[in-house]
Amino acid sequence: MVKPVPQSPPSGSVVEVSVSRVRAGDLIRDRDRLVVELPLEIRFGPRSSTVLLRTPGHDEELVRGFLYTEGIIRRAADIVALERLSGAPLNDDAGSVIAVQLAIECVLPGQRLFAATSGCGACGKESLAALEVRAPAVVAAQTIAYEVLATLPDRLRAAQPTFALTGGLHAAALFTVDGTLLAVREDIGRHNAVDKLVGCAIGEGNEHLALGDLVLVVSGRLGYEIVQKAIAAGIPIVASVGAASSLAVELAERFGLTLATFLRPGSGNLFGKIGRVRLSAPARSTSP
Amino acid sequence: MVKPVPQSPPSGSVVEVSVSRVRAGDLIRDRDRLVVELPLEIRFGPRSSTVLLRTPGHDEELVRGFLYTEGIIRRAADIVALERLSGAPLNDDAGSVIAVQLAIECVLPGQRLFAATSGCGACGKESLAALEVRAPAVVAAQTIAYEVLATLPDRLRAAQPTFALTGGLHAAALFTVDGTLLAVREDIGRHNAVDKLVGCAIGEGNEHLALGDLVLVVSGRLGYEIVQKAIAAGIPIVASVGAASSLAVELAERFGLTLATFLRPGSGNLFGKIGRVRLSAPARSTSP
Repeated sequence: MVKPVPQSPPSGSVVEVSVSRVRAGDLIRDRDRLVVELPLEIRFGPRSSTVLLRTPGHDEELVRGFLYTEGIIRRAADIVALERLSGAPLNDDAGSVIAVQLAIECVLPGQRLFAATSGCGACGKESLAALEVRAPAVVAAQTIAYEVLATLPDRLRAAQPTFALTGGLHAAALFTVDGTLLAVREDIGRHNAVDKLVGCAIGEGNEHLALGDLVLVVSGRLGYEIVQKAIAAGIPIVASVGAASSLAVELAERFGLTLATFLRPGSGNLFGKIGRVRLSAPARSTSP
Repeated sequence: MVKPVPQSPPSGSVVEVSVSRVRAGDLIRDRDRLVVELPLEIRFGPRSSTVLLRTPGHDEELVRGFLYTEGIIRRAADIVALERLSGAPLNDDAGSVIAVQLAIECVLPGQRLFAATSGCGACGKESLAALEVRAPAVVAAQTIAYEVLATLPDRLRAAQPTFALTGGLHAAALFTVDGTLLAVREDIGRHNAVDKLVGCAIGEGNEHLALGDLVLVVSGRLGYEIVQKAIAAGIPIVASVGAASSLAVELAERFGLTLATFLRPGSGNLFGKIGRVRLSAPARSTSP
């Protein structure tokens, strides 16, 4: 289902530029590596498009995953055709416009176009009501041992080829509940990294996602956009190194997701459906 | 021009929830404090609105700053009226819809509505061309000593009332070039924190911004959205604890901004118009 873990950054995701480094009071002219941030336009027709600010790399997955987690498509086969308008091949992530032909029954939200960028999961929603997640509650039955769960953030970090070069981007990874790393994706936008993973899992021509037994691990914090995408993709367990927002916890409780935050080997915080995490000792109800 | 630094989190920006804490293999039921993330709808008319995912607090500043840095208004007086539709007072940040009446000459982008969220600075841009920043180059002549600049991230962190409680949100602050802290704002979205600062600086009825001699310091990383907003607001120097993206550096060079990244007392990286940073020793052109 999922493609192998990359060993080096995708081409075009890192750029070398001139920098002036301050070191012990001296100014030193040098070269520096930066994470690339570039717009990608998804074009649905001559007057209908959306722009994502993303790090080039796995663009096709990003488009598939974005369309899926935003509810525009319901299965991989709803994408009839994907074409890079520069004339470059789809896997050449330098091109900046991808044209999508959707099955007739796919409905773009409203008359207008949705738009989204590096850090944004609610884009194109015109009113508060549109923020509602339209998805069934997550019903996965798999559980994970806490000792395994707590190791995943470190393993995500170790598998980030671009972070090691630039120190500047987000990552997301899918693991099985026995701790096997299936795929890792990096992006300047945390939610783009999640969309790339989901797009990778859908693949081309797959009829259904099979994410209901997996664990999503993200660098940084857990906000609305990540939890919304996990729910849309049916991923039952989401873990992060950082804190969760109030809306992330609220969504998790409502849709039966398990959230693990501030995850460290010896400690962590659990929200939502916590029964999916197995601990050696039984739960106590006293305060610390 | 700028209001005093807050000493405690704005009401409604932190919420207490139930949490299950893992501690040394035990599961302990406890209470936890989370950063609040909630949608705020800015309504321009019965069929025209945008939704921001933000942390409640300084909502009025957020709306003013957002409209300014997105180029919808050109001066504070372009906002004819601001009203919270819940009937609550504007400074009651619990309400979730703010109605804005703009001067007749303000043009919302296209027929459609722009939308933006906690992490998003390019929302509502329908094409790559719309990502272009429409602003004059920054021409401020003030300089800052590196020894002062390098202390600002630590001083930002020390002035974050909500981060101390929750460990989970972004901040931005405005400083003078002699290191005086003028204002700090926190939000789940880094660019909302910047909009709150800019909205605070515009104020109600002020005709012009006076940000051309100030330094903007942000937690975390520097991407497109922060630099775009700094350019729109005319802030000449932008500093961060983390890395910059390629697009952030490109914009800074094109518009004459000074960027300082990975800022620490002994070291940092400078991009764009570096002459605004004064060092004790002259520049060397050798590699490290």
